[in-house]
Amino acid sequence: MITIYGMSDSGNCYKVKLAVEQLRIPYRWVEVNSAKGETRTPEFLARNPNGKVPTITLEDGSHLAESNAILHYLAHGTPLLPAERLAQARALQWMFFEQYSHEPYIAVARFILYYLPPETPRRADLPRLHERGYQALGVMEQHLATEPFFAGGRYSIADIALYAYTHCAADGGFDLGRYPEIERWLERVRREPGHLPLG
Amino acid sequence: MITIYGMSDSGNCYKVKLAVEQLRIPYRWVEVNSAKGETRTPEFLARNPNGKVPTITLEDGSHLAESNAILHYLAHGTPLLPAERLAQARALQWMFFEQYSHEPYIAVARFILYYLPPETPRRADLPRLHERGYQALGVMEQHLATEPFFAGGRYSIADIALYAYTHCAADGGFDLGRYPEIERWLERVRREPGHLPLG
Repeated sequence: MITIYGMSDSGNCYKVKLAVEQLRIPYRWVEVNSAKGETRTPEFLARNPNGKVPTITLEDGSHLAESNAILHYLAHGTPLLPAERLAQARALQWMFFEQYSHEPYIAVARFILYYLPPETPRRADLPRLHERGYQALGVMEQHLATEPFFAGGRYSIADIALYAYTHCAADGGFDLGRYPEIERWLERVRREPGHLPLG
Repeated sequence: MITIYGMSDSGNCYKVKLAVEQLRIPYRWVEVNSAKGETRTPEFLARNPNGKVPTITLEDGSHLAESNAILHYLAHGTPLLPAERLAQARALQWMFFEQYSHEPYIAVARFILYYLPPETPRRADLPRLHERGYQALGVMEQHLATEPFFAGGRYSIADIALYAYTHCAADGGFDLGRYPEIERWLERVRREPGHLPLG
C-alpha cells in the first residue's frame, strides 16, 4: 500500500488525496505539519530532501515528491491521464502553469490571509499576489470559454491540479464572481464521481 | 516543421533548442523579445494566452507552451524521456522542482544582475533569492552524490531542464565552486552528443 505524507488543509496535498480516492487506490495517510518543522526532520528529509509535502512512499520503499509528478504517476494507465501524446503534454502544460503562474500567487495569498496573524508584514505582498493571481484566473477563464476541461476534452489530473487552489481562492481574497466560466468548471469538477472536499 | 517562438538568451527557451538539436528534430526558430512587449501582442497571445516564451506551433497548427511540457512532448518515444512509469514520474518530479524551487530564485537572480541596470531596487531581493537558490543547489548536490543524472540513471529531459539555469548560475551571483557534484554533472551534460551552448 502507498503511504502519503501530507497536510490536510494544503491544496497541494489535497490533489493527491483526491486522485487516490477517485482512482480507488488504497493508501495510508500520515499527517505532517510543516508549520511545526515536521518536514525538516532527518527522517522526513530522507524521503524528500526538498522538505515539502506531499511526498509518497511506494510499496517498494521508493519515494516520490512534487504534487503534480505524483498525480502523473498515480494516473498512469487510467482515464485521468490522457494517453495521446499532445493531450498528455497539454495536461502537463496546465500543470506547469499551475505551479509557476497560479500557485505562487493564489495559494500564497491564501496562506497569508488564512494562516498568518492579521498584523503580519507579508500582507504588503497582497496587491502584487492579487494582480498576478487574477492574470492566471484570466488565462483559465479564456480557455474554459471554449473547452469544458483543461486537456483532452475530459476531466484529468490537469483539472485536479488547478481545482486545488482555485476553488478556495476566496480564502486569499480573490473574487471568483468575475469568472463565470471558472465557476461552471468548478461545479463540473465537483460533480465528478468520487469527488471529496478539501480538508 | 515545428516553429519555436523563443528568446535566445532565455534558459527556458534554451531547453527547447537543446532538445530539438539533440533529437535532430527539424525546426524554425522565431526570435521573440519579451522585453519589447512581443509576447503581449494579440498575435502572440493567440498562441499562448499566458504571454510567455517558449511556445511552439506544431505542424497541425496547434500550440504548446511551458518549457518542460514542450520537452515532454518532443522527447516522447525517445531515450530522452524515460519510458518506465516511476522513472518518468521521477523526471517530472525534478522538472516541477526546477520550475517551483530553482528557476524562481536562480533565473530571477540572473535576470536582475544580467539584464537590469545596477541601480535597480530589485537588487534588494538578492539575499532572499540567493538563500533559496542555494537551498535548491544543495538538494541537487545531494542527489548527484549517488546518481549520475536526475532520472532513470541516464541523461534525460530532467537534466536538460535543470542544466538550463544551473550552468549559468554564476550570472546571478551564485558560487558553484561549493558544489563539486554539480560541477561534475554539468561536465557530463556538456559531453552529451549534440550539446550546444546557451545563446
